Amino acid sequence: MTTETARVEAFSDGVFAIAITLLILEIKIPAPGSGILSTQLLKQWPSYVSFLISFAFIGIMWINHHRLFTYIKRTDTILMLLNLLLLLMIVFVPFPTALLAQQYRLNPNLRAPALLWNGTFILLAAFFNLLWRYAAHENRLLDKKADQQAVEAITRQYRFGPLFYVVSFGLAWISVPASIALNLFMAVYFAFPGRKPRSPRDFPPAL
Amino acid sequence: MTTETARVEAFSDGVFAIAITLLILEIKIPAPGSGILSTQLLKQWPSYVSFLISFAFIGIMWINHHRLFTYIKRTDTILMLLNLLLLLMIVFVPFPTALLAQQYRLNPNLRAPALLWNGTFILLAAFFNLLWRYAAHENRLLDKKADQQAVEAITRQYRFGPLFYVVSFGLAWISVPASIALNLFMAVYFAFPGRKPRSPRDFPPAL
Amino acid sequence: MTTETARVEAFSDGVFAIAITLLILEIKIPAPGSGILSTQLLKQWPSYVSFLISFAFIGIMWINHHRLFTYIKRTDTILMLLNLLLLLMIVFVPFPTALLAQQYRLNPNLRAPALLWNGTFILLAAFFNLLWRYAAHENRLLDKKADQQAVEAITRQYRFGPLFYVVSFGLAWISVPASIALNLFMAVYFAFPGRKPRSPRDFPPAL
Amino acid sequence: MTTETARVEAFSDGVFAIAITLLILEIKIPAPGSGILSTQLLKQWPSYVSFLISFAFIGIMWINHHRLFTYIKRTDTILMLLNLLLLLMIVFVPFPTALLAQQYRLNPNLRAPALLWNGTFILLAAFFNLLWRYAAHENRLLDKKADQQAVEAITRQYRFGPLFYVVSFGLAWISVPASIALNLFMAVYFAFPGRKPRSPRDFPPAL
Repeated sequence: MTTETARVEAFSDGVFAIAITLLILEIKIPAPGSGILSTQLLKQWPSYVSFLISFAFIGIMWINHHRLFTYIKRTDTILMLLNLLLLLMIVFVPFPTALLAQQYRLNPNLRAPALLWNGTFILLAAFFNLLWRYAAHENRLLDKKADQQAVEAITRQYRFGPLFYVVSFGLAWISVPASIALNLFMAVYFAFPGRKPRSPRDFPPAL
Repeated sequence: MTTETARVEAFSDGVFAIAITLLILEIKIPAPGSGILSTQLLKQWPSYVSFLISFAFIGIMWINHHRLFTYIKRTDTILMLLNLLLLLMIVFVPFPTALLAQQYRLNPNLRAPALLWNGTFILLAAFFNLLWRYAAHENRLLDKKADQQAVEAITRQYRFGPLFYVVSFGLAWISVPASIALNLFMAVYFAFPGRKPRSPRDFPPAL
Repeated sequence: MTTETARVEAFSDGVFAIAITLLILEIKIPAPGSGILSTQLLKQWPSYVSFLISFAFIGIMWINHHRLFTYIKRTDTILMLLNLLLLLMIVFVPFPTALLAQQYRLNPNLRAPALLWNGTFILLAAFFNLLWRYAAHENRLLDKKADQQAVEAITRQYRFGPLFYVVSFGLAWISVPASIALNLFMAVYFAFPGRKPRSPRDFPPAL
Repeated sequence: MTTETARVEAFSDGVFAIAITLLILEIKIPAPGSGILSTQLLKQWPSYVSFLISFAFIGIMWINHHRLFTYIKRTDTILMLLNLLLLLMIVFVPFPTALLAQQYRLNPNLRAPALLWNGTFILLAAFFNLLWRYAAHENRLLDKKADQQAVEAITRQYRFGPLFYVVSFGLAWISVPASIALNLFMAVYFAFPGRKPRSPRDFPPAL
């Protein structure tokens, strides 16, 4: 954390932390007197799954944000605006996730909420790319001593993000479960840093 | 971030981050069984617009707060009290914005909520000026090495803030849409730093 | 902010920032269709007063917490536990304040909620004293270069806090408005730093 | 706080601070007109106890997190993922605690909610161990100058955590009050740092 990006990181940490913590508000205590407690709790399982998935996605996006800002060491107005766009989507993630969980209980046809959920990740991946490419273009805002291979590894890993999410969006028209599964796979893919170009022996990725 | 202003900035970052994240709580999942999901979601569009506008305004105000504190390097009780006044309005912004969105659906006459919304920004602009003028008066709390032209550019840019919002307030008596549009224009105006006095070639503003 | 107390301060800043921002959740948008908007908004005035008072109290307590930690430079388990006790009361403040506002509309006899409200401040003042005295006792956790007169000024100013709040608590049995007024006066008193002992010319207090 | 772990700590502080502050949302102002105020307030006592216990547990876990990160000075993807697991449980703690408080009023048989509550602490203790053991294994991510005795003291203290919580889980099948009491005892045990191995005179533990 340099002096210059310290507040951008602190503000972003705050937004990530609040967004991830507010998720618990969606898990309600069962109303009294409506049956056996354990049955009531088990019936809420889509809420728990929604909570876990939102928590994992926001957490992994925080790891990615943290990773980018180990290289980004300067800031300007455009970077702050791009960062706000990214945070806008982070704050939004719990809404389509909770909607998907709610619809699961109501409606055999999950296509509409799955598309909204997936569409959120297309935008998120696009905004991550925008932020990174703006900062990394000719090392505009990067640490002057940044490891060029690591920088390129991020660029390469991120390039495929929007593409995969678009594929997943299309897949939802054929099979909603397959589309959701591909989204979850992408989360795991982005949890770990990209492979550096010239050190193939580093795979599985050096942590 | 200097040692002395670090906590003022950290506390303010927290307030901005929470205020901007709490906005999502206003977007509700449609109640089950009341129609086609996509129709229900589309009918909520004033909530989305309110969310986006509040997010943009709070985000841009955070950028401005961050910009001021790249120059403010010392703190005292009065600065902290003025900063609290500013944060009070930041925390309040979502209320008139949500009210405007709700009234849009109910009431053809938006004058009253538009005036409340606009009035909030008059106070915000006034408190931004108060904070900055207190800190910048004879460089009271500024970095001793602060670029004087940049300091003057901020003073000049901020001077017009309250004035424009007062004009916009008056405009609401003639045309509510024109008043709202002027408020949105002001948000964009304050997203970017003020023009430095002696470097006209710098326009559009150096970021 | 030293390395050692950085996280205690960051965690406390987070709690203060969230507690002060959550206050806005108590201000509700009027339900649609129940009268003229401006009348509805005005009828909510006890909520606004409660919001302003809670905001001012938590803000001023943050300023005091900040002031103490400009001198406290080391930390230990007991300090962290005492700090947690203090934060517990900070988090609690909005509850008795909102209760007082609600009862104002319902009940001519405000003694019970005023006593609860005032009792909260007795505990808060006591916990501020405990924290400070633990840290300042023989300079246990203070900056070794701390200005001894400033340290003594804080000790002296804080000594009277619990006493005044106990007086105010007693006063509520005679006159509730007088008791509330004394609480508000105390808030202003604690907004500014205590008078240093040997520099009477410093009054009004150097900021 | 080193540069490298600064954001992990800041993000974690945010999550702890929000989780501990959101607890107050569970304490509701009594509905107007349903009896004498003080009686209504007293009837809510299980909510207050639940609030206090959750506050104490999250606060003590924050102290432990803080303690671990005075030794952990480097970070990697696996540490961040383990930290996210830990934060997941922190965010979850208020749910089983509030459930236990609600059931207390409804149901003489508290076994099910007590088991859920206790089970949360088993996972929390396990995740604390995982995080610490991953970081401390051959000093992987620790400060190179870390006091080895203090490191071993933490490892030893933490080793018994999951075990005790499992015992407490079993105890709930015999006596729910005894199980709850053992959980509270454990909170106090973890509030203070572990005993260093070779300085038995240090007990009670040096703070």
